[in-house]
Amino acid sequence: MDNTEITIKTDKIYDGKILSLKVDTVELPNKKYSKREIVEHSAAVSIVAITEDDEVLIIKQYRKAIEKEIYEVPAGLIEIGELPKDAAMRELTEETGYTASDIQYLSEFYTSPGFCTEKIHVFLATGLKLGEQNLDLYEFIDVEKIKFEDVLKMLDRCEINDAKTIASILYYKEFRRKDNE
Amino acid sequence: MDNTEITIKTDKIYDGKILSLKVDTVELPNKKYSKREIVEHSAAVSIVAITEDDEVLIIKQYRKAIEKEIYEVPAGLIEIGELPKDAAMRELTEETGYTASDIQYLSEFYTSPGFCTEKIHVFLATGLKLGEQNLDLYEFIDVEKIKFEDVLKMLDRCEINDAKTIASILYYKEFRRKDNE
Repeated sequence: MDNTEITIKTDKIYDGKILSLKVDTVELPNKKYSKREIVEHSAAVSIVAITEDDEVLIIKQYRKAIEKEIYEVPAGLIEIGELPKDAAMRELTEETGYTASDIQYLSEFYTSPGFCTEKIHVFLATGLKLGEQNLDLYEFIDVEKIKFEDVLKMLDRCEINDAKTIASILYYKEFRRKDNE
Repeated sequence: MDNTEITIKTDKIYDGKILSLKVDTVELPNKKYSKREIVEHSAAVSIVAITEDDEVLIIKQYRKAIEKEIYEVPAGLIEIGELPKDAAMRELTEETGYTASDIQYLSEFYTSPGFCTEKIHVFLATGLKLGEQNLDLYEFIDVEKIKFEDVLKMLDRCEINDAKTIASILYYKEFRRKDNE
């Protein structure tokens, strides 16, 4: 069955700094019309960065949307004309100060396909070397190195509440398991 | 370090059917001001529903935001005054036609805490019995029963691209592993 929805009309509501909002009027498979509220958000990268001592670089960041500080893997938007892999290298260094000698594609997913275009490409970064953090004036990020086994315990205790971080870490866990087979 | 951002002003941009948008002016820890674009979205549930034959109920649904059909676990918004557990029971039946005799909390997470309030509560549903699907006029959903081991293969091949589905399935996998220990 083809359930494609045909766009009849697009109303632009808002065009902002990190996202924009539109409302599409669509024709459904049953020929009825409906409205779809859609948040347009640039594609992004997330980085599972592993040190030589089997630690994961985890950042702690205040998120205004949910009004609290949460644990996340480093992540950020892909700039126009930039390859996902290069964005991963850049964001890792900007947010944590570390550079990576190896970067490897792990997976990709949509964060909220029900209403948002955002896609995240997940990378594994290894061969880490500490340089200098390079945050913009509006970012306040604490970097922690946490043993991989302890990160898994944090997941078990539901202390990590960010979907991209959960998916990225568990994808890496699978990758590691297969690598050891 | 306390990185809390204090709200100075809120501009309401849009108030819609499934989401609303506001722009908060905030005071940062360094006393500078910045803008935060925030999508307000109701909390939701996702359901990992397992049949007696160790199949997972997976739905295939066209998503206008990303302009394609994708595989997801059943999910939906929690209504006002409704318990997450009851929302999970209701959405499972509406979307798949199955009722569950057992429902169990697995985890919870934010889908995009960088800009969106949405929180998803994950439940495991077992003791399934087929009744009748009850979609609204604007939903077109195909339900498939897929062996759990095949769902894991789909994850490995990156054929499942929805963050909540990835996180829900992998949380269930961990739950199952611990249950078998």
